[in-house]
Amino acid sequence: MITPEPTLRRLPWYLAYVNMLHLQGVEYVSTTTIAKGVNVDAAQIAKDLSVLGLKGKTRIGYEVASLEKVLSEFLGFTKMHRAVMMGVGSLGSALIADSGLQRYGLEIVAGFDTNPALAGRRINGITIYPISEMGARITQLHVRIGIIAVPPESAQSCADQLTACGIEALWNFTPMRITTTGNTVIQNTSIYAPLAIMYNRLQSPHPESEKS
Amino acid sequence: MITPEPTLRRLPWYLAYVNMLHLQGVEYVSTTTIAKGVNVDAAQIAKDLSVLGLKGKTRIGYEVASLEKVLSEFLGFTKMHRAVMMGVGSLGSALIADSGLQRYGLEIVAGFDTNPALAGRRINGITIYPISEMGARITQLHVRIGIIAVPPESAQSCADQLTACGIEALWNFTPMRITTTGNTVIQNTSIYAPLAIMYNRLQSPHPESEKS
Repeated sequence: MITPEPTLRRLPWYLAYVNMLHLQGVEYVSTTTIAKGVNVDAAQIAKDLSVLGLKGKTRIGYEVASLEKVLSEFLGFTKMHRAVMMGVGSLGSALIADSGLQRYGLEIVAGFDTNPALAGRRINGITIYPISEMGARITQLHVRIGIIAVPPESAQSCADQLTACGIEALWNFTPMRITTTGNTVIQNTSIYAPLAIMYNRLQSPHPESEKS
Repeated sequence: MITPEPTLRRLPWYLAYVNMLHLQGVEYVSTTTIAKGVNVDAAQIAKDLSVLGLKGKTRIGYEVASLEKVLSEFLGFTKMHRAVMMGVGSLGSALIADSGLQRYGLEIVAGFDTNPALAGRRINGITIYPISEMGARITQLHVRIGIIAVPPESAQSCADQLTACGIEALWNFTPMRITTTGNTVIQNTSIYAPLAIMYNRLQSPHPESEKS
């Protein structure tokens, strides 16, 4: 079942909000309350939550604990998904070091770098291998996701190599847009892009911006 | 001058592509070539580049070196912008350790954490201070940008504190959506959100996804 991408972008906001309510000991929540908390229309929230097959009760709304559980399972955050990190420079090592990824179901099982000096090193328990071992390791470790944190000019060739090794989803952290043929899933997450918007709005007389 | 947000999201793609051409020794580039490289319509690219006040020449297109220079200046990447890091846990420290931010004009000048054990520590040369010193340090260091990497349930109160200290732009890395009153610039960059889309597409029989 294909869930629309905008819905998949909003559901994690509801999960974060419901998780906060859970920590606060709140037992039930209405779409109206979630709407105020996450700044999304209540009708939209009800529609988004309908993909979960959960029904809120009239007057009291959704049970917080169930909603949290069903949301995290639906989003895939409760299962581990294996990934390799391509490029272990500044951003690649920072991502390997971030334990948050594991809480969201991503397990980085190996890193690869063209720098021979890095081969055999370990970061946060993850071994870095030379690029030449990429194909064999990906097959052996049953990896489906490739994270791209190489220099931007190598992003596309890295993506091509990963798909040739059978990788099914590419998470691109470089500012270079990558494309693939076929069914490969691509997420372009340039973490520096929002900076351009912030800088531009900061120099304007009346800054305004709100977008994820 | 307010540049539309979609334009500000596309310009960094062109910059990354033009930067690659520069490294390859290419001297001139047409919008048609950029269009193929970044998978955006050539007419859209010409329109986006018109905000720079640069004119391409008939037949030969834009001079690569000038286009690269004008683009990075326009996007604010060549000037340093001071920021504080709120929350120096796993993600906060990872971001402080990433030297990429500096290349995109962001200088983190201080970190803050509620954990008293962290006060006085340094990460990548940046000192971590107790929250109680936040207001004074932000004023003293002339900081305009606050990066939020606290636990999601504290994101909103952290945002409120930052705006109370005079911070003008908030870069929120938590999955919790934050809101503010007034003119504060907000960029919500939940780096874990794309995972939900990847996991969903990976379980579908015919995965398809392409969105930044």
